[in-house]
Amino acid sequence: MKIAVIGATGTVGRAVFAEFQPRHEVIEIGATRGAHCVDLTKIDSIHALFKSIGQVDAIVATAGHVHFGELSQMTPEQFRIGLDDKLMGQVNLVLVAQQYLNDGGSFTLTSGIVGDEPIKYGASAAAVNGAIEGFVRGAAIELPRGLRINVVNATMLEEAREAFGPYFRGFEAASGARVALAYSRSVEGLETGRIYKVR
Amino acid sequence: MKIAVIGATGTVGRAVFAEFQPRHEVIEIGATRGAHCVDLTKIDSIHALFKSIGQVDAIVATAGHVHFGELSQMTPEQFRIGLDDKLMGQVNLVLVAQQYLNDGGSFTLTSGIVGDEPIKYGASAAAVNGAIEGFVRGAAIELPRGLRINVVNATMLEEAREAFGPYFRGFEAASGARVALAYSRSVEGLETGRIYKVR
Repeated sequence: MKIAVIGATGTVGRAVFAEFQPRHEVIEIGATRGAHCVDLTKIDSIHALFKSIGQVDAIVATAGHVHFGELSQMTPEQFRIGLDDKLMGQVNLVLVAQQYLNDGGSFTLTSGIVGDEPIKYGASAAAVNGAIEGFVRGAAIELPRGLRINVVNATMLEEAREAFGPYFRGFEAASGARVALAYSRSVEGLETGRIYKVR
Repeated sequence: MKIAVIGATGTVGRAVFAEFQPRHEVIEIGATRGAHCVDLTKIDSIHALFKSIGQVDAIVATAGHVHFGELSQMTPEQFRIGLDDKLMGQVNLVLVAQQYLNDGGSFTLTSGIVGDEPIKYGASAAAVNGAIEGFVRGAAIELPRGLRINVVNATMLEEAREAFGPYFRGFEAASGARVALAYSRSVEGLETGRIYKVR
């Protein structure tokens, strides 16, 4: 399969690349680094990416920022960071790139454990993750030509413990390799509308 | 209790008003009609409302628009209608109005069945409803002074069948009076972080 991995320079993206690389043609796409770049908040940037790399069999998105902060101090502008970046980035990708997927191809998006399991400072992240999962359930039944869409909802990665550990005290972490298996199930299986949870 | 019902002129809002009115002081608030109005997309409008009506014991929001349309034709701008209105309207309300709630007071927000149960044209609504529910779970653990927050997720209302029936073929409807009971459980109970489903 020809697989585009968007966010390939991030912690999850690198693990996904390592999982697929031995048996597929994987195209690594970064936000600012790597041979191919895309800004998912810009429709034109998404078109330009796929005009450059051509039709693909699967698109994996592991990119997106959200704001973590105290609810009582959070401004609407801070709340919107995750809506504009992690949510609308992945939504834009699906709205635009469905035309660049081969018949039977798949989208695999990324949500996260915050939302199912609330944490301090996580109200905006919880909203964004809930939105992505609702969108995937809604989009799955409408995609044409056998196109599929799923989402991976993982706990904190072991590789990200240094950065995110203070937010996730008491949470068990999962290795990038384990999380990458969920992306493999989505891309190489036949299901659609699924939320793959890695705990 | 002194209860502010925002969206009081809508189908759900009228049913909620009828449920609370016999035993509480209910303030009806509309978007454009009624004695009190608020535009939840405007922070200043929310402050002005509560400066006018004063501190309350409960805030119920039943307002919000989303765009329904075919996924393959949906533009990012159409997708954002629901994020800006139904989602950010209710999020803005919580961010701003927590200071106008008496100790132990509650927010009761409104999501909807689309998201749990996908329907054609409903991908944006599914994202919005998922976001509201994620936000409620996230916000519940952070609200100070015993403040609570819940959300009601109802099926199509019988009273709305004429407008929405074609989108919900095969779905059982619920009466406004049954749906209003879920708002009563939220406001007059003690739970927080709950999603009350009415099917």
